[in-house]
Amino acid sequence: MPDNLGAQPGSTPGAPAFERLCLIGIGLIGSSIAHIARQKALARTIVAMDVSADVRRRVAELGLADKVAETAEVAVHDADLVILCVPVGAIGEVARAIAPHLRDGAILSDVGSVKSAVIADVAPCLPKNVHFIPAHPVAGTEQSGPDAGFAALFRNRWCILTPPLEADPKAVARLAAFWTAAGANVEIMNPAHHDLVLAITSHVPHLIAYNIVGTAADLEEVTQSEVIKFSAGGFRDFTRIAASDPTMWRDVFLNNKEAVLEMLGRFNEDLTALQRMIRRGDGQGLFDLFTRTRAIRRGIIEQGQETAAPDFGRRKGEPNGD
Amino acid sequence: MPDNLGAQPGSTPGAPAFERLCLIGIGLIGSSIAHIARQKALARTIVAMDVSADVRRRVAELGLADKVAETAEVAVHDADLVILCVPVGAIGEVARAIAPHLRDGAILSDVGSVKSAVIADVAPCLPKNVHFIPAHPVAGTEQSGPDAGFAALFRNRWCILTPPLEADPKAVARLAAFWTAAGANVEIMNPAHHDLVLAITSHVPHLIAYNIVGTAADLEEVTQSEVIKFSAGGFRDFTRIAASDPTMWRDVFLNNKEAVLEMLGRFNEDLTALQRMIRRGDGQGLFDLFTRTRAIRRGIIEQGQETAAPDFGRRKGEPNGD
Repeated sequence: MPDNLGAQPGSTPGAPAFERLCLIGIGLIGSSIAHIARQKALARTIVAMDVSADVRRRVAELGLADKVAETAEVAVHDADLVILCVPVGAIGEVARAIAPHLRDGAILSDVGSVKSAVIADVAPCLPKNVHFIPAHPVAGTEQSGPDAGFAALFRNRWCILTPPLEADPKAVARLAAFWTAAGANVEIMNPAHHDLVLAITSHVPHLIAYNIVGTAADLEEVTQSEVIKFSAGGFRDFTRIAASDPTMWRDVFLNNKEAVLEMLGRFNEDLTALQRMIRRGDGQGLFDLFTRTRAIRRGIIEQGQETAAPDFGRRKGEPNGD
Repeated sequence: MPDNLGAQPGSTPGAPAFERLCLIGIGLIGSSIAHIARQKALARTIVAMDVSADVRRRVAELGLADKVAETAEVAVHDADLVILCVPVGAIGEVARAIAPHLRDGAILSDVGSVKSAVIADVAPCLPKNVHFIPAHPVAGTEQSGPDAGFAALFRNRWCILTPPLEADPKAVARLAAFWTAAGANVEIMNPAHHDLVLAITSHVPHLIAYNIVGTAADLEEVTQSEVIKFSAGGFRDFTRIAASDPTMWRDVFLNNKEAVLEMLGRFNEDLTALQRMIRRGDGQGLFDLFTRTRAIRRGIIEQGQETAAPDFGRRKGEPNGD
């Protein structure tokens, strides 16, 4: 991997790894890539495009890119790295629009939470001289839009690459180096396995969070005001997850249907067993499960994917915090 | 409510509202009450007792109480406020042990997450000259034990009181003033309604968090190491909730069986509908639900039960944070 990838501007000799980085879709992820690419000088020029004129205006105001393009076709002109940061359901359409305009030898990537469906949609429409290397940085917050991004989003998070078997190893290495320089750990994975892993670590958790918030909103015996007032008992954490971007998540479920339904089936089986334990008063069974689940938590904290600090809905320095 | 309840030591004339506060069970909640009672001078003397000798030693080391008693019977001697901070399943047993030793006119309360079962268990064994006023401060973190407590835990959180119909209004007002002085907002509620509200805002959320962590741990196609590495996609927030104290939660489910099973039934119905939307590719239905759930989130933030700051598993000032 080129040495200059992790460089601060001016601190290392040599050119940035990419001449022209084009970001299509400037939400949380797109704007975070813009921030870190600027901070680490990962590209000489950053070009941004978003389908929304309001977002394009905001990107210009925030100075997130060197150029803001009006259309994707224009945006990709001469870019040696193009990253599609649009919802999974829109990736195919954008790829078809830009395909004839991509530079010879360009790397085309994405950040979608689903990989098999994206590959099936995008790969057939690309010219042979473009390196298509799908990617998924497993990082995010519940916030959306160009103002939500920040340079540290990817730090110590995993970015999964799912290159096709015939991918050029040099192109894969260049993209891996880009993500490493952005602070992420890179893992290469088969797209189908990616979709299964993410179904359990991300998609089903979001689905059940959305679901319980919906259940609570529809109750007649418990008012919405009561749900809100007494949410500190656990519910409020689910509302945070269920505050994520609706379009993005609709597309995830429509495009990872099989793996999500499979994992949801396992979840339901286990929940039925738990329900029976409660009905039968099986305290030992409940206690055993509740103890066993702590080991995974410890692993997550030990590997730096979460802090051990207790969370009770406040942060230090905020009005309600200490 | 007496003026001196919110007093800092020495800042207001007059005696504290309670002469002798006895706390039985010094975990997260018990130790947090000790901290705030000391800070706000809510009682002249604080007596603490825990069934574990290790915890008693730690309480003494931390200076959480003026006296640490070896048994509950001794601890309650002459106390005018006794708060049982033990798991719901242990409250009845402790109440039976201390009943003959309670001071005439003492207020007996608890902090259990379930109210009907506790009342059924405790009320019959108490002498007539004791005011039994069940309470539930809806506050907590995923951490347990005497080191986990802190004075601000109850600030701007709700404390629900479920006094019996025949309760002495003066005793209810004294306990309400105690919790108000501790920083909480007080709400009076019928015990059965409390149990239903908490089933949806706290108990079922914990149950499904424990459940999905268990499901993920049991998969064969996805390794535990992968679950941990890629947990930042949403799963890790569930592991936080599923890291709560196993004994406490076992007791909650065994003692609020009916309301939990009722709310779990609603959750399951809704999840089945959502599953069908995914199977049928009903994007509009998914989008509508995912949009609707955002309103509840806004309410929770507006009412100060959560901050709007994005959470991505880091805190400012911590190694991985900004």
